[in-house]
Amino acid sequence: MTSRFLAACRKEQVDRPPVWIMRQAGRYLPEYRALRERAGNFLALCTTPELAAEATLQPLRRFPLDAAIVFSDILLPLSALGVAFSFPDNGGPKLASPLSRDSWQALAPPASWEAMEPVAEALRLVRQELAPEVALIGFCGAPWTLACYLLSGGHDADWSRARQAAYREGEALLELLLLLGRAMGDYLAFQVAAGAQAVQVFDSWAGVLPAELYRELAVPALAALASCLEPLGVPRILYLGQGSHLLAEVAELPFEVVSVDWRTSLAEAAAITGKAVQGNLDPAALAADPPTVRQRTKRMLAQAPPRGYIANLGHGIWPDTPLEAVEAFVAAVQEVP
Amino acid sequence: MTSRFLAACRKEQVDRPPVWIMRQAGRYLPEYRALRERAGNFLALCTTPELAAEATLQPLRRFPLDAAIVFSDILLPLSALGVAFSFPDNGGPKLASPLSRDSWQALAPPASWEAMEPVAEALRLVRQELAPEVALIGFCGAPWTLACYLLSGGHDADWSRARQAAYREGEALLELLLLLGRAMGDYLAFQVAAGAQAVQVFDSWAGVLPAELYRELAVPALAALASCLEPLGVPRILYLGQGSHLLAEVAELPFEVVSVDWRTSLAEAAAITGKAVQGNLDPAALAADPPTVRQRTKRMLAQAPPRGYIANLGHGIWPDTPLEAVEAFVAAVQEVP
Repeated sequence: MTSRFLAACRKEQVDRPPVWIMRQAGRYLPEYRALRERAGNFLALCTTPELAAEATLQPLRRFPLDAAIVFSDILLPLSALGVAFSFPDNGGPKLASPLSRDSWQALAPPASWEAMEPVAEALRLVRQELAPEVALIGFCGAPWTLACYLLSGGHDADWSRARQAAYREGEALLELLLLLGRAMGDYLAFQVAAGAQAVQVFDSWAGVLPAELYRELAVPALAALASCLEPLGVPRILYLGQGSHLLAEVAELPFEVVSVDWRTSLAEAAAITGKAVQGNLDPAALAADPPTVRQRTKRMLAQAPPRGYIANLGHGIWPDTPLEAVEAFVAAVQEVP
Repeated sequence: MTSRFLAACRKEQVDRPPVWIMRQAGRYLPEYRALRERAGNFLALCTTPELAAEATLQPLRRFPLDAAIVFSDILLPLSALGVAFSFPDNGGPKLASPLSRDSWQALAPPASWEAMEPVAEALRLVRQELAPEVALIGFCGAPWTLACYLLSGGHDADWSRARQAAYREGEALLELLLLLGRAMGDYLAFQVAAGAQAVQVFDSWAGVLPAELYRELAVPALAALASCLEPLGVPRILYLGQGSHLLAEVAELPFEVVSVDWRTSLAEAAAITGKAVQGNLDPAALAADPPTVRQRTKRMLAQAPPRGYIANLGHGIWPDTPLEAVEAFVAAVQEVP
């Protein structure tokens, strides 16, 4: 059975837009919260294949989604480069200290992805359970976004350290970004070997850079990443957070799909990049009552290109989202045409 | 003597672009830190006219800037509406609790701006001291940005409460925004009466809204604000944070200048809005060595329109900015042509 999701990534004709939700395995689901409790902590949930597979599958049991995305975190594979983030229960992921230039220049590409074997096993377990028409997505963080975390040592409102490094020591930073790009490309190939049928690269903090620096620093590293996947033939999706000013910069990159947030017009993203597009309802919109969610979703669909479109939110779903809003969103897409 | 700054706001021919720096009276200056210490706390510094005037004048003594902006905070005038933020020494401004819909619907326009008399007095003191060719700018927060703080009770990474309200109770929120727009327009008129020769409206969080909601909610309130100033004939500047997707939305608003950040092209801002433009060097760029700062500044100037341009950063200057970087930025503008 063909996957509606994979067909849309390739801009093939589909009966209706495929739909999935970024962070669909997440805290808005009561069954996820129970599983998270059972796992004890976030890291255990990610690194125990049976639990990660279960988290991945939960939203599919509740909503008729067209894709599953393996439950993991963009910072986990950095452990294979010798950089271990901790995931405290409160507040975001943390490094013991932000990477200095000396420490980032000492990073080496991982010799193997053995440490990430639990993710591969979760992918295999999920693929066994999934209906054949539901696509399985692997993912990683984009080099720039990973560098933001590495140089800040955790989440930061302004990502000031990474941005300052971009201006102050751009050449050295580019080396780091290229290293991360090659490593993440390799990591995605490892996920494809375990069953991922498409991959998404999250450049969540793309939008803090001006176009000029994105072109100088982020784009070459994304090109290195994407080229590792070239022989595998799986659709590559680039999530571009706050990237309405970066569409022209990514147009030539070998990604088949660009995923945009609620601040970027779907029509403009399709026209400027020539790629399939994914997105882009504001996660805040799901705070409204179901009829309003349905109406906002219909307006989003009206702006989508007729071919090469995957319905999604513009960013990860928020933990306080009511389930009936998610239902209204998914149903509004599935009623098309 | 004519002001280069005021002339550029009106798109008149000038010998070189005027330059000032958002948050130029701030923590990167050692003399500001000493003054802040002397004042005891931030609120005392804002509300003691002699101290606020001194903070306003400090950067002008160090750098040959073309404008001064009165030292204050966008949340202060909300006290005249009965909403008093506290300004703790660590962390941002705070409300006792975020405004609920009931409490925001109970807000009334201020009967007078008597409570803001210290700001008027600071403006008068600064005007006495300033060289005649240096323009004096008054300011306020834009309705949407103020609503972000009111509904979140302080700074928030996502502004989730305000964004959720925009979808869930847009009509009630529009009433609040219109009330804030009229009140802030009136407050700016009060500042003009005290000596402000131009006004800037900070819509720092404009960019969290999609274009559709910005048009529905933020724009009508900005129109109400700007129309209060119509009879006064002073240039009106709209700072649009993260607003590269909002340029078309603000084109028809009666502001003479649009101030954009480093993610919005100056040339595009000028072309789409037809207004004079202000900006837009990334504050992170000032972490680089002076020759690099100079080079980045020259590149910014090369993208600016030939008429109707005011050099500035794209956001407030950061506290850790080296003074020699500020010097390099200002000097690079002043060498033009």
